[in-house]
Amino acid sequence: MGLFSKDIRSMDDLFMHTLKDIYYAENQITKALPQMIDKATDPQLRQGFEQHLRETEGHIRNLEQVFQMMNMEPKGVDCPAIDGIIDEAKEIAGDVEDPKVLDAALIAAAQAVEHYEITRYGTLITWAKELGRQECADILKRNLAEEKATDEKLTQLAESRVNIAAAE
Amino acid sequence: MGLFSKDIRSMDDLFMHTLKDIYYAENQITKALPQMIDKATDPQLRQGFEQHLRETEGHIRNLEQVFQMMNMEPKGVDCPAIDGIIDEAKEIAGDVEDPKVLDAALIAAAQAVEHYEITRYGTLITWAKELGRQECADILKRNLAEEKATDEKLTQLAESRVNIAAAE
Repeated sequence: MGLFSKDIRSMDDLFMHTLKDIYYAENQITKALPQMIDKATDPQLRQGFEQHLRETEGHIRNLEQVFQMMNMEPKGVDCPAIDGIIDEAKEIAGDVEDPKVLDAALIAAAQAVEHYEITRYGTLITWAKELGRQECADILKRNLAEEKATDEKLTQLAESRVNIAAAE
Repeated sequence: MGLFSKDIRSMDDLFMHTLKDIYYAENQITKALPQMIDKATDPQLRQGFEQHLRETEGHIRNLEQVFQMMNMEPKGVDCPAIDGIIDEAKEIAGDVEDPKVLDAALIAAAQAVEHYEITRYGTLITWAKELGRQECADILKRNLAEEKATDEKLTQLAESRVNIAAAE
């Protein structure tokens, strides 16, 4: 996009661009999560990732509903941010041998993904409301609530189980 | 790192790696913020970015203190996540012509940066405490508090001023 022309002219365009960005991100996350499930050792962490994979599939369907409400075909745009976050997760996971330390690294990587989604959904909800698209905001809020809950669960898991095992 | 060997063997190694990651990220942010200041139109947004540039310089000094406490030289590691987040910010900023829409896009980009830092500092604080490094955790908490405050200020600015102007 945008090498020779300014493609985003209005808040509607900016909203649609960011919707496509998070749609691409959620799709990339469904590809990355199975690898994280394979690598995780702690059973609660594995279960958490498995549950979040199902939730992510639901988020994609919710986003498709928002595209429909905007009379647009669901479509992604390249998102260097989520690509970078996922690349970094893979890189660090490849550098850790000890399974307990790897679990701690996987939690940190997953929380970086969650925070990216939290910030994008927060932004999209604010913009949807200001554009008078309350029905879009309501759907996006459901995704945001699940991302926040996942982030909190990961913090609890890190503090209660995985890191304590890794530091032993 | 890590193509042929597993370089991270312990929680100490993982902590140091992530400390280098956020040190690199903070340094990249000091390079990106002046461009965001130049592009911002809303005077409160410009002021906010200017204040956050000074805070970021303080965060770097705080991180250097943590390196010292760990008896390590301050050093960064490549961080594809922050590189991706900053690349995406530049890309979207290049795609927007209208100054009010650009301000909204700049706030969203800055909040993605803040959330990356919030997640990394949260992780580092948890790990420092578990490694018995309360003195490191205390310094990292100061950086985290300022990142969270900046994120909240950006939300308020987006909701109260910039987006309303952009949607007019």
